[in-house]
Amino acid sequence: MKEIQGISVISLTPFTESGEVDTDSLRRLTEFYLKSAVHGITILGIMGEANKLTEAERQLVTETVIQQVNGRVPVIVGCSATGTHQSVHFAKQAAKAGADAIMLAPPTNLKNLDLVLDHYRHVAKATDLPLVVQDEPTTTGVILPPPFFGRVAKEIGTARYVKLEEAPTTVKISRILEESNGKFGLFGGLGGMYFYEELDRGAVGIMTGFAYPEILVEVYRLFQSGDKQAAREYFNRYLPLIRFEAQLGVGGMAIRKQIYKLRGAIQSAYVRPPAPGVDQRTLEELEELMQFLGLGRK
Amino acid sequence: MKEIQGISVISLTPFTESGEVDTDSLRRLTEFYLKSAVHGITILGIMGEANKLTEAERQLVTETVIQQVNGRVPVIVGCSATGTHQSVHFAKQAAKAGADAIMLAPPTNLKNLDLVLDHYRHVAKATDLPLVVQDEPTTTGVILPPPFFGRVAKEIGTARYVKLEEAPTTVKISRILEESNGKFGLFGGLGGMYFYEELDRGAVGIMTGFAYPEILVEVYRLFQSGDKQAAREYFNRYLPLIRFEAQLGVGGMAIRKQIYKLRGAIQSAYVRPPAPGVDQRTLEELEELMQFLGLGRK
Amino acid sequence: MKEIQGISVISLTPFTESGEVDTDSLRRLTEFYLKSAVHGITILGIMGEANKLTEAERQLVTETVIQQVNGRVPVIVGCSATGTHQSVHFAKQAAKAGADAIMLAPPTNLKNLDLVLDHYRHVAKATDLPLVVQDEPTTTGVILPPPFFGRVAKEIGTARYVKLEEAPTTVKISRILEESNGKFGLFGGLGGMYFYEELDRGAVGIMTGFAYPEILVEVYRLFQSGDKQAAREYFNRYLPLIRFEAQLGVGGMAIRKQIYKLRGAIQSAYVRPPAPGVDQRTLEELEELMQFLGLGRK
Amino acid sequence: MKEIQGISVISLTPFTESGEVDTDSLRRLTEFYLKSAVHGITILGIMGEANKLTEAERQLVTETVIQQVNGRVPVIVGCSATGTHQSVHFAKQAAKAGADAIMLAPPTNLKNLDLVLDHYRHVAKATDLPLVVQDEPTTTGVILPPPFFGRVAKEIGTARYVKLEEAPTTVKISRILEESNGKFGLFGGLGGMYFYEELDRGAVGIMTGFAYPEILVEVYRLFQSGDKQAAREYFNRYLPLIRFEAQLGVGGMAIRKQIYKLRGAIQSAYVRPPAPGVDQRTLEELEELMQFLGLGRK
Repeated sequence: MKEIQGISVISLTPFTESGEVDTDSLRRLTEFYLKSAVHGITILGIMGEANKLTEAERQLVTETVIQQVNGRVPVIVGCSATGTHQSVHFAKQAAKAGADAIMLAPPTNLKNLDLVLDHYRHVAKATDLPLVVQDEPTTTGVILPPPFFGRVAKEIGTARYVKLEEAPTTVKISRILEESNGKFGLFGGLGGMYFYEELDRGAVGIMTGFAYPEILVEVYRLFQSGDKQAAREYFNRYLPLIRFEAQLGVGGMAIRKQIYKLRGAIQSAYVRPPAPGVDQRTLEELEELMQFLGLGRK
Repeated sequence: MKEIQGISVISLTPFTESGEVDTDSLRRLTEFYLKSAVHGITILGIMGEANKLTEAERQLVTETVIQQVNGRVPVIVGCSATGTHQSVHFAKQAAKAGADAIMLAPPTNLKNLDLVLDHYRHVAKATDLPLVVQDEPTTTGVILPPPFFGRVAKEIGTARYVKLEEAPTTVKISRILEESNGKFGLFGGLGGMYFYEELDRGAVGIMTGFAYPEILVEVYRLFQSGDKQAAREYFNRYLPLIRFEAQLGVGGMAIRKQIYKLRGAIQSAYVRPPAPGVDQRTLEELEELMQFLGLGRK
Repeated sequence: MKEIQGISVISLTPFTESGEVDTDSLRRLTEFYLKSAVHGITILGIMGEANKLTEAERQLVTETVIQQVNGRVPVIVGCSATGTHQSVHFAKQAAKAGADAIMLAPPTNLKNLDLVLDHYRHVAKATDLPLVVQDEPTTTGVILPPPFFGRVAKEIGTARYVKLEEAPTTVKISRILEESNGKFGLFGGLGGMYFYEELDRGAVGIMTGFAYPEILVEVYRLFQSGDKQAAREYFNRYLPLIRFEAQLGVGGMAIRKQIYKLRGAIQSAYVRPPAPGVDQRTLEELEELMQFLGLGRK
Repeated sequence: MKEIQGISVISLTPFTESGEVDTDSLRRLTEFYLKSAVHGITILGIMGEANKLTEAERQLVTETVIQQVNGRVPVIVGCSATGTHQSVHFAKQAAKAGADAIMLAPPTNLKNLDLVLDHYRHVAKATDLPLVVQDEPTTTGVILPPPFFGRVAKEIGTARYVKLEEAPTTVKISRILEESNGKFGLFGGLGGMYFYEELDRGAVGIMTGFAYPEILVEVYRLFQSGDKQAAREYFNRYLPLIRFEAQLGVGGMAIRKQIYKLRGAIQSAYVRPPAPGVDQRTLEELEELMQFLGLGRK
C-alpha cells in the first residue's frame, strides 16, 4: 500500500466548450500535475465538480486518471454522496479501477454525528482501501469537531487520513492529533493559505486545488529538508497568489481553470452550471499578480 | 397532455430487508395508491429516498411505476440533483420512460436565485414535459420567495405547476397566485396539515406522502363538490393522524413505511442510511391513534 | 420554592399603537391569563418580543407582571442574550424583582456546545433561582442533542426544567428523561401541537403562547385526572385551531395579538419591527375557524 | 460633516482581568490607534464585543472614546441589534454623545430583505448622522446581494457608506459601485486580506480590527500617493501577518487583544464569554511571525 503524503493536488475535471468531459485534456492535465512533481492526485472532489457529473462520467474520470498516472503517484478518489448506498457503490468502483485510497465527506446537511459515523463505517467496510476523512464544513454544512475524529480513529481501521478544511486548520490539526493519538496522516487545506503552519503543526501534506502546485511542492521540499526558514520565505513569496485564489472559495474553480488553460494544460475553462460567472477584472488582477511575482504561464 | 390536480401521492421507494429496491413491492404499492383513488403519483421525491438511489435504481423505479400505472393517472418524476447536467439527464430519461411531468427542487444550498432560475431554465428546455417547481426549503436550504415564481412564470413556458412546502403554505399560495397571474397549478404540502385552507386559497391539490392518501382524496372530493363544511369536518376528523405523521418531517418516511407495511402494500419497512432509527414508542402512539380514529390497516 | 408545572403561558408583550410598552394592557393580559387558570406565566420569551426590548423595557415588563401576579402563580423570566455578561445581569435583575425561575436559550448561532454549557453554568450561578433550559433551535440556530441535557443535569444543580421546541418533541422528551435520569421537569412546546403525546411521554406541562390557554388547561386537567380518553377527545376537538396558529411559527405573535385584542385582553395588536405583516385572509380564516369550533371571543 | 475614508480601525473593548470594561485601557488604546495614524475609529462592532455589553456599558464605551478622540478623527458607532427599536435607541444615544456616523448590520437571521430594508430605513431616520451599511454575513447569517445596495442608495439618503465583509469583497465592490452609481464610500474588510485589490477596485478605505493598523495606514498612503507598485510591495511584505490574524475569524479578537497587550495598549487580554479559548501554539506562531517580519511590539 502506497503511503500518501506531500502535495496531493485536487484535480479539476476539464470539459469541452460544449460541456462534455474532455478526456484528452484530463490526460494532459494529469501529466501537467506529475511534471509539477505532486506526490498524489485526488479526483472527484468539490474542485473536480464531482457533484455535477453523472455516474458514467465519474467512472470515466476515474479510469482515465488512474490509467494515465499508471502507478507513478497514489490516486485518491472522492466517493461522497447523499446516501450511503451510492458512496459504497462509488468506493467499490474506485477499488476496481485501481484507486489507492478513497475520500469521503459527510452527506450534506447531516448534522447528527452518530449517523455520519455510521456512514463512514459502512463505506469503509466496502473496500480494503485507506480512507481519507474529508472535513468540508462550507459545502456540506456539517461541522466535525475534534472528538469525532477520535471516534473514527478508534472505530474505523482503514480511516488513515484526514483532509482538513475548517479554519483555523492549524488549531484543528493539533486537536485531532491529540484526540487520535497521532493515528491519522493529516492534510491541510484552505487553498494553501496556512500550509507553512500546517506542516509545522504536524500535517503530512496538503490536498488543494491551488493552480501552481509546484510552489507547494517546493515549500514542502524545503520544509522536509529541515530548512524551515527557507520554506517560510518561499511560502511568503508566493502567498499573494495563494491568497488571491483562496478568496474565491468554491467559485475558485473557474479561475483555476482559466490558469490551467493559460498554462496549456486544458483546452477549455468551461465550468458546469450552476456556477457563478467569472468577473473580468478578477482575471486581470490575476494576470497582474502573476507578472508581479514573475510567474510565467508554463 | 394530462392535467395534474387533486392528490398526487409522493411515492415511497420500497426496499427488501437487505436494502435493495423491491420492484414487487413497488408494483403492489402503486396498485395500493391507485385503489386509494389518488389522482397522480410523484416518484423520486425526498419521501422516495431519491437522494439515496444510484442512477440505475432511479431508472428502475421510474420504469416500474410508469409501466404499472399504465396511463391510469399522471406520473410525475423527480429530477433534482446538485448539478444541471444530471438533472437534464434525469429529465430526458423520465421523458423517454413516458413520464407525464418532471419535478425539480433547487440544488442544495444554492442561495443565488439567478443561478437557481438558470438551472430551471436549462432543465425545462431538456424536454417538452410540464415542470413542477418544487419548493423544498428544509432539505435544500434554499428559500424561494414569491417574486421568484413570478420570474419563472414569465420566463419558463413549461413550468406549469408548483409544489409548496414553506410554512405558511396558505399565505404563499396567495402570494404566488398574485405574482404569477394564476399561471401555475399549485399543490400544497407539509404532510397535509393545511390541506383544507390550501384548497380554499386556490390550490389545485396536494403532493404529499401521508400514509392514508384516501383521506385526502375524500377531503378533496367533498371540497370539489362544493360542500366545504363537510370537507372541513372530514379533514378535522383525521387531523390528529395527519399531524402525527407531520411531526416527523423527513424522518417520517420510516413511519410511513411501517404503516404501508401494516397495510400490506410493501414487504419491508427498510429505510436506507443515513436515516435516524424509529422510536418504538412512536410506533405504539401511531397504533393507538389509528385505533382511536377507527382506522383499520387496510 | 414553587414547583412549576402545567400550562405556563408564554406571555405577549403588548404595545400601544405607537409602539411603546403598554403596561395597562400588560396588567389586563396578566389577569386574563390567570382567569384562564394557567399554572404559570413565562415572560420575555420569543413570543414576548424580548429581543426587541431595551433593557429598561425588560425591567418594566418584569416588574409589572410580577407585581400583578402577586404570587398567585410562578413567574418565569427569560434571560437569553448574545453574551454571558448580559444574561447574568438579566438573571440578577429577575431575582431581585421576585421571579420564581429564569429561562435561558443558547446564544444565537453558538454551535460549540462546550461554550453553551459554560454559558449555562455562569448564568445559573448568578442566582439561586431554578433554571429552565430552553431548547430553541429555529431562532437560535443551535441544536441541543439529548446528551447535552445529561451533562446539564450532572453539572448544574439549579437547572431543574427544560422547555422543548425541537420536533419531534415526543421523542426528545423520552431521550432527555433517559439521559438525565428524570432530573428535569419537562415542558412541551411547538404551539401545543403534540401536547397530548407530550404529557403521555412524561412532560409535566407545556410552555407556549397559544392564544386559548384555557383549552390546554383543560386538556391538562383531564389528563391529570386519569381520563386520558377524555383528554385526547378534548385535545382533538380544538386541534384545528392549535394547528392553525402553529403554522405561523415566530410570525405567529401577530395573530396571537389579534386574538387577544379580539378577546379584550390588550388594546393594540402592534408588533415591533422587524416583523412580517399579517395577511388579511389569514385573519379571516382564523375567524371562520373560531366560529366553526364554537369559540367565542371571551 | 467629516468625510470618512482611509483606515477606520474597528476598536476592541478592553476589559479588566475580572471582566469589567476598562476605561483606562480604552483611553490608552484610543491614543495608540491615533498614534498609528488611523483615519477613523469604529466602536461597538463585532470585534468590540458589542454583543456582550450591557446598554450602560455601550454608553460608557461610546462616551469614553468620543471624549478621548476629541474630534481628531471621525468616530463611527455600531448600533446593530435584534430589533429596530433598540437600534433606533442606540443611534439616538450615539448622536447625542457626538458620534460622526453610525454603523448598522442586519438583525441576525433576518433573511427577508424587505424587512431588512425597513429596518435600515427606520434607524436612518432616527438621526441626521451618515449611516454605514455593514455587510456581515458570517455572524448575522444574512447575505446582502448587490441589488440590495442599489435599493438602499435610492431610498435612504443618509446611507453614505458600506463596510463589506462577504468574500470576494473585490467583486462585490465593483458590483455595488455599479448598482449604486457610485453613491457609497466603500470600505473593505476580511481583516485586510485583499486591501490592495479593494483599493484598486475603488474602495475609499477599510474597516478592520487588524492589530498593526499602521501597516494598513502605510499601504493606503502609498496607494493614494499614486505609487501602486510600492503599495503592493509593502502590502505583500506584511501579508503573512494579515493572513495569520484573518484565519481566526471572529475568534481573532482574543489574539488581537494579546497583541495589543504586548504592545502596551491595554492591560488585560480578557475576552468575555462565550468565546473559545486561545490555543497556546497559536500565540507562539504569532510571536515567531512577528520576529520573522521584524515587527517589534511597540
